[in-house]
Amino acid sequence: MADTAAGPVDLVVLGGGSGGYAAALRAAELGLRVVLIEKDKLGGTCLHRGCIPTKALLHAAEVVDTVAASETFGIRATLDGIDMAGVGAYRDSVVDGLYKGLSGLVRARGIEVVTGTGRLVSPTAVTVGDRVVEARHVLLATGSAARTLPGLDLDHRTVIDSGDALALEHVPGSVVVLGGGAIGCEFASVWRSFGAEVTIVEALGHLVPAEDEASSKLLERAFRARGIALRLGVPLAGAKTTDQGVTVVLEDGSTVDAELLLVAVGRGPVSAGLGLDEVGVSTDRGHVLVDTHLRTNIPTVSALGDVRPGPQLAHVAFAEGILAAELLAGLDPVPVDYDNVPRVTYSHPEVASVGLTAAAARERHGEINTATYHLAGNGKARILRSAGAVTVVSAADGPVVGVHMVGDRVGELIAEAQLITNWEAYPADVAQLLHPHPTLSEALGEAHLALAGKPLHVHS
Amino acid sequence: MADTAAGPVDLVVLGGGSGGYAAALRAAELGLRVVLIEKDKLGGTCLHRGCIPTKALLHAAEVVDTVAASETFGIRATLDGIDMAGVGAYRDSVVDGLYKGLSGLVRARGIEVVTGTGRLVSPTAVTVGDRVVEARHVLLATGSAARTLPGLDLDHRTVIDSGDALALEHVPGSVVVLGGGAIGCEFASVWRSFGAEVTIVEALGHLVPAEDEASSKLLERAFRARGIALRLGVPLAGAKTTDQGVTVVLEDGSTVDAELLLVAVGRGPVSAGLGLDEVGVSTDRGHVLVDTHLRTNIPTVSALGDVRPGPQLAHVAFAEGILAAELLAGLDPVPVDYDNVPRVTYSHPEVASVGLTAAAARERHGEINTATYHLAGNGKARILRSAGAVTVVSAADGPVVGVHMVGDRVGELIAEAQLITNWEAYPADVAQLLHPHPTLSEALGEAHLALAGKPLHVHS
Repeated sequence: MADTAAGPVDLVVLGGGSGGYAAALRAAELGLRVVLIEKDKLGGTCLHRGCIPTKALLHAAEVVDTVAASETFGIRATLDGIDMAGVGAYRDSVVDGLYKGLSGLVRARGIEVVTGTGRLVSPTAVTVGDRVVEARHVLLATGSAARTLPGLDLDHRTVIDSGDALALEHVPGSVVVLGGGAIGCEFASVWRSFGAEVTIVEALGHLVPAEDEASSKLLERAFRARGIALRLGVPLAGAKTTDQGVTVVLEDGSTVDAELLLVAVGRGPVSAGLGLDEVGVSTDRGHVLVDTHLRTNIPTVSALGDVRPGPQLAHVAFAEGILAAELLAGLDPVPVDYDNVPRVTYSHPEVASVGLTAAAARERHGEINTATYHLAGNGKARILRSAGAVTVVSAADGPVVGVHMVGDRVGELIAEAQLITNWEAYPADVAQLLHPHPTLSEALGEAHLALAGKPLHVHS
Repeated sequence: MADTAAGPVDLVVLGGGSGGYAAALRAAELGLRVVLIEKDKLGGTCLHRGCIPTKALLHAAEVVDTVAASETFGIRATLDGIDMAGVGAYRDSVVDGLYKGLSGLVRARGIEVVTGTGRLVSPTAVTVGDRVVEARHVLLATGSAARTLPGLDLDHRTVIDSGDALALEHVPGSVVVLGGGAIGCEFASVWRSFGAEVTIVEALGHLVPAEDEASSKLLERAFRARGIALRLGVPLAGAKTTDQGVTVVLEDGSTVDAELLLVAVGRGPVSAGLGLDEVGVSTDRGHVLVDTHLRTNIPTVSALGDVRPGPQLAHVAFAEGILAAELLAGLDPVPVDYDNVPRVTYSHPEVASVGLTAAAARERHGEINTATYHLAGNGKARILRSAGAVTVVSAADGPVVGVHMVGDRVGELIAEAQLITNWEAYPADVAQLLHPHPTLSEALGEAHLALAGKPLHVHS
């Protein structure tokens, strides 16, 4: 097609996940000729094995929780069971609908999609099968894969990763989740809603350890109240499969028996076998090293998304894809501000944040101010029977530098918060503006009112 | 207490609703001595008979809808019934919890609350019962009450207002809702979820007629799909009660029979008997006239909230309360920007907006740009099985001047949108920032990307 008929294309992208397809779409929009190489399906991990299907499971879990709590709201309803085949069909229908939309978009923009595994053979050429695609520029967007700990082997039946967990066709009676980050907490939340006995084992002292400590504590309290057992600050010593499942041994000598062990200790870059060493692309422990313009040490090779060091988030990859395409097209785009990227853990309750934790803000800015608004004072949160809080952190007499939230549905609120931190708004700038009543978003308004020295619905 | 012991207080507030208590709280915070007169309960209409209890009903309705649709998500559940006593207990528990919090706040700030009906007897004095409260300043915050049409008498049994509707102890078999504004649409939405046959009669051509026409049309489509009958553009001719309920006659000669008729044609100011004429406070059809600083023609008398002309929204009253208190304390606050107040109709689906409709923007700015992002392309909306759209309106090559949304839970998203319009952001300012994936808030990001000329997940 394009590449053979008329010499090198403008851009060849290795990997059709969030970052890869975003770059391809934006590049095509800017008039560039693009070849996109994907070994599986357009949409990648996020669409097929990550963000989207897990959030479908989380919503099915929300439905279960709603039915279970219906009497609280005056509604008489009976939970008859979790139909995992039905949950699977729902999950797949969400994924399929988005996949169809994405495939249509890529087709409509005239992007050539090649199925196969690409491999760099020169700074401007990639092989896929027995074909060579010559390109003015190569973008590495091969993403990440679930990893495990040394000595802990996944058998994908009893000791599983998140991909296996998503595909599970039954609700396990009991699970140990190894890893208290976003992925671990989300699966723990789903399984608990579905009726499993769940234990989270986290070597660090807190769940979602990258979050502000206050958020971690609120999540821990909520999870404990839901009957999720937490083993925090205790590393894993080992695990052995048994007739009944798995026995997990911790370094303090205690053990936890369960039907399944989900290993959710993080994701590592997919960069082996890509020809990076041969062409001389610099890497660090498998991560492709890039600058703020996503350029590697080879001028014609860029990288984005989970394969480079940095946040492993689909929305970051989208932004990087757009950035990479615009740079290649000769535009002058603004680099991604990694300090102000919103983060959400979609458990029940949700944890959302943007900017600096209070501790990090203290380190960077010295004196800081913080205000916390508890959702107990928020009308909508009382209506939802949700607990949690919103904390806003500002530099002393300075702009807002961090926002941290815990509560059901707060993931939607962090979109406003990221405008505030990105635009370096002062507490008083936000305090004078109106949040609709009664919404959860008022909690963000109230926290800013308090930080601006004029608390409204707050006990002083 | 304060007023008798030490001469006039700084501020006497007539009415303890959203605006009145916000003014009292802020004034007390600023060191002023405040007397708050309320004939019923602190919190007023919004807390006891408006925003809060209706949103509790709407959430109970959401629970019903979730149970009814549970199979879609793979969850087997049976709806056994609506326990209206239980719904009432839930509604009251939400109201009571907030009422307790508010009462504690007012007490903690040292505000004297007097129960009774206040009446202005001079520019600086109010009577309540046989007591006279002298004050440096008087704030009228008496709010509004449901009104009806000439010739249409409320009997509060068959022909009812929103207060009666809230207190209803059964689910009616059928209802005619007269008025397709926010209140009418919210009750129609609740009753339909609870199983009633619902017809909305609206004299104007659209539901939520103050919203952008595209939003109205999306809501109409969604309501029709839910089996809510719409009679739009047909004024009421009359209604007569029958043995079975009520027969509603429209001006085109058609009739609708129902068990109940809810009259939701708007709310009028509560200003009769306040002594306004006697003291010479200027009014217009019962509304107390004020300037942007909420001052009436009498220098020591201000007014805010539903008793003045303008938006009848609790969050506007909160902001006005803060403004009035700060002005009285000699601060230099920024007046409320009424053009950029967010508005939400909390029906299923929700309608939310801020700023100008496309039609109003065209009138004010001449050439405009708009971008609409349909929720069919949004992952979270597909997960929720929610339809709708986000439309962003900008002046040509200018800032964003309006945002319009329809869909479940979009009321939370308008908080971000109001920052955008209040801060006069350009589409490109928002387009370069990141919305977390997968959230509904991405739809707002995508609409800005499209308006900035770089659509991502959009068919061009």
